[in-house]
Amino acid sequence: MQAETMNTSLCSAGYDSLLEVMRRRRSIRSFRPDPVPDGLVDRILEAARWAPSAGNRQAHRFLVVTSREKIGAMAQAVEAATQRLADHLRADLAEQVASYLANFRHFVGAPVVLVAIYRTGFDLLRAVTPSGSAGELPGAKPVVDALASVSAAIMNLLLAAHVLGLGACWMTGPLVAAGELMAILEVPRGWEIAALVPVGFPAETPPATPRRTLDQLVRRID
Amino acid sequence: MQAETMNTSLCSAGYDSLLEVMRRRRSIRSFRPDPVPDGLVDRILEAARWAPSAGNRQAHRFLVVTSREKIGAMAQAVEAATQRLADHLRADLAEQVASYLANFRHFVGAPVVLVAIYRTGFDLLRAVTPSGSAGELPGAKPVVDALASVSAAIMNLLLAAHVLGLGACWMTGPLVAAGELMAILEVPRGWEIAALVPVGFPAETPPATPRRTLDQLVRRID
Repeated sequence: MQAETMNTSLCSAGYDSLLEVMRRRRSIRSFRPDPVPDGLVDRILEAARWAPSAGNRQAHRFLVVTSREKIGAMAQAVEAATQRLADHLRADLAEQVASYLANFRHFVGAPVVLVAIYRTGFDLLRAVTPSGSAGELPGAKPVVDALASVSAAIMNLLLAAHVLGLGACWMTGPLVAAGELMAILEVPRGWEIAALVPVGFPAETPPATPRRTLDQLVRRID
Repeated sequence: MQAETMNTSLCSAGYDSLLEVMRRRRSIRSFRPDPVPDGLVDRILEAARWAPSAGNRQAHRFLVVTSREKIGAMAQAVEAATQRLADHLRADLAEQVASYLANFRHFVGAPVVLVAIYRTGFDLLRAVTPSGSAGELPGAKPVVDALASVSAAIMNLLLAAHVLGLGACWMTGPLVAAGELMAILEVPRGWEIAALVPVGFPAETPPATPRRTLDQLVRRID
């Protein structure tokens, strides 16, 4: 009973301010050159640390990249990969998509780039069944838990960055160069990059992007 | 400058209370029988609505299942699938894993079961390249964006549930019966279930599960 009371008192005005944080957070793609104090980076990673994960396996890590040399090499790899992609675009979409692709490298302007990685080698079904039989199980599913879990951690991190006055952006576009990025960052075998998250003090205040209404988002089965 | 000032003032004590919400949230697997008012369910879905998504495509939806009949059928399907799985377990792990599998159906005790679904049919690379050439692109990656995005929405939703005094749990175990669940819930082709999230007033106050330390979670590249 005590825990419940604490919870209620902790959260009396809690929902409104939490929703306000969620609503005001923006994807920030342009950063001031000021460095981000290590203490602030640690505080947003602390938020990531408390996200739930499948089976509490916490099968993910964050690389905190502040090396200008590494960030530059990453941006070059993404530039080269998007150029290759641009050469393959449908003619009618080429101009529009090329400008979209150009966004994939804007992390180069951030003082810190977080790289979220997750382990792909673990398969619960294979771990608990005799060798070779997991594939025969009806309903056996591919293991996507680790990606879902690292995504939860990224969401926590973005909320924390926002309340600390930092800007950040959840980028998967740069993964067109996933292989090269993994080589540059020495990501071990059996791990994949989930996203790049550039972090810095915002140099822009973008408007909210539109969202579906609740009715569009939800189907009720009652 | 004004936006920045607002941000700072909004969030002066914001980080501490946000982290407190993240730290105190628990995965709740046991629920009081009391129904959850529709208004509260809408408020947690409102939080999900504001999560970012890849390309702002919002390629996910939430099914809000309150039908006892449907929830019962879902639990039966999961029960049957876990039984099939149990028949294949490695002998040395059988007892331990069987008790783990039994957890997959505890959503049956929740007054509301949210089912998060995401669209798998969309492939950005295929959409912007001439038919057939996407597969030849160096670095072309499988489209996992939609799962990452729905996971962000689920994280927001869990935080909101907690501050409203509700318990919830991010469950992927029941996906051993993904096919059957999709049939019961009439999930359209081209969509997959990301997770089941039972929601209700908590009937337990579980302790925190351990987390890696920041040093274990992070590698610095500076």
